Amino acid sequence: MKDKQKFAIIVAGGSGKRMGGDVPKQYMRIGGKPILMHTLIKFHEYDAKMTLILVLPEDQHPDWLRLIRQYAFTIPHHLANGGSERFYSVLNGLQKLDADGLVAIHDGVRPLVSLETIARCFDAAAIYATAIPVVPVTESVRWDNKVSNKAMDRRQLFLVQTPQVFSVSLLKESYNQPFDTTFTDDASVVEKMGHEVHLVEGNPENIKITRPMDLLVAEALMNK
Amino acid sequence: MKDKQKFAIIVAGGSGKRMGGDVPKQYMRIGGKPILMHTLIKFHEYDAKMTLILVLPEDQHPDWLRLIRQYAFTIPHHLANGGSERFYSVLNGLQKLDADGLVAIHDGVRPLVSLETIARCFDAAAIYATAIPVVPVTESVRWDNKVSNKAMDRRQLFLVQTPQVFSVSLLKESYNQPFDTTFTDDASVVEKMGHEVHLVEGNPENIKITRPMDLLVAEALMNK
Repeated sequence: MKDKQKFAIIVAGGSGKRMGGDVPKQYMRIGGKPILMHTLIKFHEYDAKMTLILVLPEDQHPDWLRLIRQYAFTIPHHLANGGSERFYSVLNGLQKLDADGLVAIHDGVRPLVSLETIARCFDAAAIYATAIPVVPVTESVRWDNKVSNKAMDRRQLFLVQTPQVFSVSLLKESYNQPFDTTFTDDASVVEKMGHEVHLVEGNPENIKITRPMDLLVAEALMNK
Repeated sequence: MKDKQKFAIIVAGGSGKRMGGDVPKQYMRIGGKPILMHTLIKFHEYDAKMTLILVLPEDQHPDWLRLIRQYAFTIPHHLANGGSERFYSVLNGLQKLDADGLVAIHDGVRPLVSLETIARCFDAAAIYATAIPVVPVTESVRWDNKVSNKAMDRRQLFLVQTPQVFSVSLLKESYNQPFDTTFTDDASVVEKMGHEVHLVEGNPENIKITRPMDLLVAEALMNK
C-alpha cells in the first residue's frame, strides 16, 4: 500500500497582544531562533517529504520573508493568509491542499511537540481518519458558571494539544460548516459533523506559548 | 475587630516516585535550596506571625531535621506525620490546631505561589469561610470515559491550585467525614459537606512540581 500523502498546516495568527509586547509571539526567539522556525523544523524532521503550509496574517508576510533571509532558513514551505478567527485561518490553509491524504493542523506556538507525538497522530489518523494528542490533567478541576461551582472528576478530563491530524477529505467536509464560537480546535469542528475523534498520547512539554511565563518555560524545556 | 488567627498546613507526602529518582520531590533543590523551604518562606513572608505546620511522612522527619541544620533554616514551624493518603495527612495537620481562625492547606511542592494569591485566599476566606485559587484553562479540554469522548466548554472550567483557605471549625467538621476517593483537594471535602466554595484568582506560575519537567520549569520561573 502506498503511503498517504502528508500535509501540515501550521497556524500562526497571533498578534502578540497577550505577550504584552509588540512582537507577535510566533516571532519571539527561543534558543536564538523565532519560535515558528523551531515548529516548522520539527515537522520537516518528522518527514522531509511532507508539504508544509504556514498560515500567517497577510500583513506579516513581508516580516516573515525578511526573517527567512536573516536566519538563512531553508525548510521549504508555502504561505497562506490568516483569517479573523483561527477557523478561517485553517480554512485558508486547507484551500492550498491539492490532493487527498492526511493533514496535520498545528499551532505555530507549539515548538516543543515531540517527533513521537507527531508520529502517533499520523499513524492513528491513517487508521481512524482522525487523531488528536491529549495529556491528563494534573490539577484538580472545577466547573464554574458564575452562579455556582462544583468539583469535576479529573480522571475523565484531558487537555488537548496539536497536531490534530485528519483525512484531508474529512476535514475539508467539516470546514464547510459555518463558523461557531464553540470551535476551539479542529476536533470540535469535526465532532460537530458527527464524527468520532480518536485520542492518542501527547507529550507534556508540548505547551502552547501564549503568556510571557510560557516563553521562559519553553526556553528551559528546550535547553534540557 | 481582632484579626482572625492564621495557620498554614503545608502537605508534603511525596515519595519521589513520579520524579523518577530516590529523592522525594519536596527535597529537590531549586535556586540552591530544597523546594519545601521556598514554600515555608513564602508563607512566613506573607505573615510572620502565622503558625506553620509541616506534614511529612514520619520516616522523613530525621532527613528534614538534618536539612534544616545543613541550610541553617530558621523559619519556625511544627511537624506532623503524613498519612497513607493526602486526606489523612491534612487530618493529622488539623489535629495540631489549638484555636479557631483561618487555616490554609497548601501543597509543599508549590513554592511559586505568589504573596498576592495567599493574601487573596485569606482575605476572601475571612468573609466567606472558604476560598480557593483557580486559573483558567488555556487548552481545549476533552471529556473521555474510554467509550466515547466529547469537547468540553473550557470557558467554564478552571484549574484548582492551593492554598485552599477555610475557617478552622468548618474544615475540621468537613474532615470528620470518611475518606472518599473523589477527594482530590480540600475544596472537594468541604463541598461534600454541602458547603459552597468561594473562588479567587490564583497565579499561573503557581505550578505543582510533580514531574521532572516541572523542576526545570520552576527553576526558570524562579530565576526570572
